[in-house]
Order: sequence, then structure tokens, then C-alpha cells
Amino acid sequence: MKTRVGIIGAGPAGLLLAHLLSSKGIDVVVLERRSRAHCESRVRAGVLEQGTADTLAEAGVGERMRAEGQVHHGIELRFGGEGHRIAFEELVPGRAITVYGQQEVVKDLIAANLANGVDLRFEVEDVAVGSLADPYLTFGTERLDCDFIAGCDGFHGVSRESVPAADLAVYEKTYPFAWLGILADVAPSAPELIYSASERGFSLHSMRSDSVSRFYLQVPPDTRPEDWTHEAIWAELKARHETVPGFTLATGPITQVDVAAMRSFVAEPMRFGRLFLAGDAAHIVPPTGAKGLNLAVADVRVLARALGEYYRTGSEALLDAYSAACLSRVWRAQHFSWWMTTLLHRFEGDPYDRRLQQAHLAYVAGSRAQATALAENYTGLPYAD
Amino acid sequence: MKTRVGIIGAGPAGLLLAHLLSSKGIDVVVLERRSRAHCESRVRAGVLEQGTADTLAEAGVGERMRAEGQVHHGIELRFGGEGHRIAFEELVPGRAITVYGQQEVVKDLIAANLANGVDLRFEVEDVAVGSLADPYLTFGTERLDCDFIAGCDGFHGVSRESVPAADLAVYEKTYPFAWLGILADVAPSAPELIYSASERGFSLHSMRSDSVSRFYLQVPPDTRPEDWTHEAIWAELKARHETVPGFTLATGPITQVDVAAMRSFVAEPMRFGRLFLAGDAAHIVPPTGAKGLNLAVADVRVLARALGEYYRTGSEALLDAYSAACLSRVWRAQHFSWWMTTLLHRFEGDPYDRRLQQAHLAYVAGSRAQATALAENYTGLPYAD
Repeated sequence: MKTRVGIIGAGPAGLLLAHLLSSKGIDVVVLERRSRAHCESRVRAGVLEQGTADTLAEAGVGERMRAEGQVHHGIELRFGGEGHRIAFEELVPGRAITVYGQQEVVKDLIAANLANGVDLRFEVEDVAVGSLADPYLTFGTERLDCDFIAGCDGFHGVSRESVPAADLAVYEKTYPFAWLGILADVAPSAPELIYSASERGFSLHSMRSDSVSRFYLQVPPDTRPEDWTHEAIWAELKARHETVPGFTLATGPITQVDVAAMRSFVAEPMRFGRLFLAGDAAHIVPPTGAKGLNLAVADVRVLARALGEYYRTGSEALLDAYSAACLSRVWRAQHFSWWMTTLLHRFEGDPYDRRLQQAHLAYVAGSRAQATALAENYTGLPYAD
Repeated sequence: MKTRVGIIGAGPAGLLLAHLLSSKGIDVVVLERRSRAHCESRVRAGVLEQGTADTLAEAGVGERMRAEGQVHHGIELRFGGEGHRIAFEELVPGRAITVYGQQEVVKDLIAANLANGVDLRFEVEDVAVGSLADPYLTFGTERLDCDFIAGCDGFHGVSRESVPAADLAVYEKTYPFAWLGILADVAPSAPELIYSASERGFSLHSMRSDSVSRFYLQVPPDTRPEDWTHEAIWAELKARHETVPGFTLATGPITQVDVAAMRSFVAEPMRFGRLFLAGDAAHIVPPTGAKGLNLAVADVRVLARALGEYYRTGSEALLDAYSAACLSRVWRAQHFSWWMTTLLHRFEGDPYDRRLQQAHLAYVAGSRAQATALAENYTGLPYAD
């Protein structure tokens, strides 16, 4: 088999890239080891930056997102017995977030790709990168020759591992806690996300729809989902959120419990010969800043444009600029994600640092300048292009 | 002997308090173990916040400061081969800093106190707090009875040590470097302060007048002034500052070299019975944010007002509120000083943290919101009163 761009992974990065390239008439094949049903039901991120939502809409895959997604113009920071709203409409006029689950984005992208006749292959086995210089992929008993390989297969994928270790600079940090993620069939208890920096640890009140809530609890890093009974989850969520007068957390049936590690990771560069890494394959952020999915979309924007330029004019200038162009935004998001994580979580140990954190929270809530810095990062800084 | 307020220490805090109280007709005595000449020549801070300059002017001790001090409307952050100006006039209109040496402030305050007939005693020996409840001080062979004691005797003074350790909550942090301070008879090489986050470590270009420059170099914590020859100092200052095209650091005779530890420290509360701690006696910040002298002035503003209220109306309400009122600003300055210190210094070790620091620097230089946060802290947030 032969194609222009062989794409590994049918997550948001791979699917959006396939859609953007095929829309330009560039032939692609997408190889995914999981089933379509698995990809469409995987609960992940749910906060789309202004630019991400605009990108999806401009790409023609925003119809359902615009109809069913919730546009939020603020978030609440809750600490010290008070709630403080970060009001996007005042601080960064014209920028907002869209609350729309990643699996919904994936469903929309799969449908759009299939409608365009894109060759999406699920449940393919043993995908491997054959060569970086004269690129081809192998899977099952087949070989896919291509001009370029796009590694969109996530942190644990084969793409990055196909690069010789000596060619990669790796930067990473782990945090001394994890997030217990909870999906529940209950209406959200507030119209916007609540980032609660409670004395008992961080907790996030989020939502997927008018009838589905999504919560996160800061937990020890070795926590397993089965360590928490549903009763214990609700008790802890209440204890961490019912810290302001008049707020009651509504409860309901819990439908899913998962644990996410908190890790920062960047591999540089993001291009090796004819292989381009995008999204989680190249970088991971802790979820506190809601940046993972958004960074993947930003990478793919740059890559689709660069490949489009190459096939239109033969120029490799944008392909050569790909890694640096992405990494500037990646490191901004790395810093913001670290900043949000250290601002909001409970750390053991140094009492001075704890007081510093409290002073920092009070400053973010009280300074228009610092709140604007949070808002511009959270809603997403403008793209460089 | 007897007085209303016994003040320990003739630094900026003690002297300003004496001046403000005596101007209200409240009797004070100031006890200082060093000589007047020593106090007037001690080279310390040199950056006055907008509010500090205004406070001194309103107190009638700003004439020479207004004539000889330099008003600066910006500072430069230098890193990655470029300089980035933080433009106060754009970011925080109406707020600026005044570059005027602490020893000049001390000279002005001593002169004003003496002109008002305030009892300033230098070179007094063995000052000690006799009692916190029924307050008196002892020194030499004398005893000074007073209504209140103001502990303005710095980090190593006797005031804080007179408080039972069990009554004090102490928060502290040390940094793995010190500052080598250099005073030189040479005109500044640029009109404004330059905070240089170089690959070789942090360096600050500052000044005391049109003909006297003040520099700082990040050095190992155990450095002694005699470890550095003048040639080595100039070579290092040049290496850390001549990192942008066209910039040359002018050299000249070095007149003083000192080493300052980098430490964060807060003791809470700031009041014990009839003893009030102010300035360095209660809290220390690393000098990167230029906040030490300014915090002392802020404390003294609150204390003078509270004591004035007490003697005018008999109400202890403001005295009771003193500690909390000061600590709010103290912790803001603690956070800002930590933030500036970690933003600008070279830390050994983790490569991820280094990249995060570079991303952070780029963000401060590139984001109006984050630059405004720096500017509003650096020029000084408005007083709560």
C-alpha cells in the first residue's frame, strides 16, 4: 500500500490531521490499534480553548460542538472559604472555553473522515515505524509506504520509541499525587467549573452536559480506582467543595472511576527525518490547566499547514519550522500547567511554601493583572500564525 | 526614664516611626547600639516603591529624596540575548520607583528627628526588653519605662528574641546562593536597572547616583567578599551583562564589596502584648524584589496610625489589627520576592525546571498581563488604608 501521510493513532490529533489533510486533497491512511467503539467512548479532557473550538468549526467539524457544547465565560477558584470568579468576558473579551468531551470530538472527527472517504483502520495490530528516512509503516502483515509519518499515538505509542534515544532530549517532572476522575449521572451543582484548593487537597467540579458531572480529586499517586467506594468519593467531594456558604454538591450514580497520573513531559525535537510527532506522543501536561487536547490541536494546525504548503509548492520551509513552532506553545502550556498545579494542590511538607501558596491564591483572586494572565492562558493564547 | 513608645533600632523603620509619632506629639526614645556614622553609611537597599516615596514626602522628609533621587519608569529584564523593558508608565500609569539609597533615607530621618528634638541615642549598650506585659527596656545601667515597645532592630535584634519561642510561628526558606554586592565609582552603564538572567547566573545592574553604580552577582552561598578580586568581579559582571548587542559595561574603582544571604523569613504574629515588631525584625525577603525597606515603611505606616489612634481616642482597635494588617502585605511581598528570585537566578539541577524558567521569562516579557503583575508588585501595590 501507498499513501502520502501515514498517521499513527486515531485520537483527536491523528483524526484532525487526517481530516485537515484529506480536505486539502492529500491522501492519508490512519492506523489505530484500538476499536472505533473504544476510541469513541474513552473519557478524557473536556475543555476546549477558544482557538481549539474555532479550529474545529473552521474545519467543518464543529456543528454538534456548537449545538451541544457549553460555552463558559468564567471559572471559579475556591479557597479560604470563598469563591472567586475568573471572569473571561471582562479579562479577555471575546475569548471563552467550550465544555465538550474529547470523546465527542473524536466521534465528530471519525464521522467527518468516514464521510470524506478517508482510510481509517481500527484494530490494526503491531503497527511499527519501518524507517524514518525513507518512510514506511508496517502493521499486521502489511506495509504502508508514505512520504511522511505523523506520530499521533500518544505518550505510550510506538512513534516516539522509534526515534533513537540519542536524538531525543527529554524533559520531565512527576508530581506527588494523582487525580481520581469520577463521572456521574447528576446535573452539575454550578454552571461553571470550580477549582477548589481545599485544606484536604485539590478538587475539581466539572461537567460533560446538563445531566452528567465530571469530578476530580487529588489523591496519593499509587491510588487505584477500587480503593474508593462511591460513598467515600461523595463524602470527599462534598468536604472539598462545600466550603463556601450555601453551596451543596448534588450526588447521583457514579458511572466511571479512573486514575490519571500527574506528569509533565517534553521530548525534543518533534521532527525526525520524515516523522513528525504531535500531541501526547511528544508532550504531556498535568491536567490542571486543561491543555493536553488543546496542545494536540495546536500541533496539528501547524503540521497540516506545513504539509499543505509542501504538497502545494514543494517547499519544506514550514516542515523545517514545525518543531520550533510547536515547542514555543508547548513550553508555554508546560509552564501554565505547572503553575496551575502548584497553585491549587495540597503539597506535603514545608510550611513556608504553604503560606506562599495561600498568598499566591489571594493574589490571583485579587489582582486583575494576575487573573488576566490566568484567563489568557486558560482560554488559550492566540496562535502564532 | 519614661516615654510613650520605646523604639529599639535606628534603621529606616525605627527612625520613620520616631518621626511620625513625634510629629503627632507622641513622646518616643530611640535606642541604637551602633554609631550614628555607622547607621548613615550602611549600604543597603536603594529602590523605593511609589508608596514609600510618597510616605516619606508626606512625612516631610522627602525634600532631598525628590531632589537627588532618580525616578525610574521601568526596569529591564535581560535574558536569551535580548533586553525586555517592563514599562511602568504603560503598565501601571502613575506608579514609578525612586532610586535613592537607604543610607540617604536614614540620614534624612536622623536629621528630621534631631530637628524635632527627638531623643535618639546611639551606641547604647546591652539593650534588652524588660517585660512585654508591663513594658520597659533596659540599656547600659538605665531603665526606660514605656507604654509600648517598637522592635525595629532588624533580623538579628533583641526584640523578636524576647518573645517566648512557643508564641512565635516561624516560616523560612533559604536559597542555594548569595548576592555579592559591589559599589563602584563609575557612572551607570544604562539609565535603568537591568535584571540579567544570564546563563552564568543572575546579575543586577543598579545605581546610587549619576556617578556611583551598584551591582550584584549571584554567587555560591558560602562566598566571602575577599574571594573575589576586582578584576574577577568586572570580568563576571561583563560576562553576565554584555549579552545583548551594543551593550558595554563601564568599569571604575570598586569602593565596597559585601555578601548578602538570600533568605525568606516571617515570624507571626507581629505583636506580643505591648511589643510591636516592624520591618526586618519580623520578616526578611531575598533582595531580588527590592521589598525589604519598602515593607518596613509599610509596617511603620500601620503602626504609627494605630498608636496615633490610641493616644487620640484610647481605642486599641487598630493596635489589635496591626499584625494582620501588616502580614497581608508581608506575604504578598514574600511571594513576589520568591517569584522574582526563582524567575531570575540560575538553579543547579533539574533540566525540566530550567526550561520552565525560560518559558516563564519569555512569558513575562511577552504578556502584557504578566508584565503588569510584575510592575504592580515592583512599584508597590496600593496600601490597604
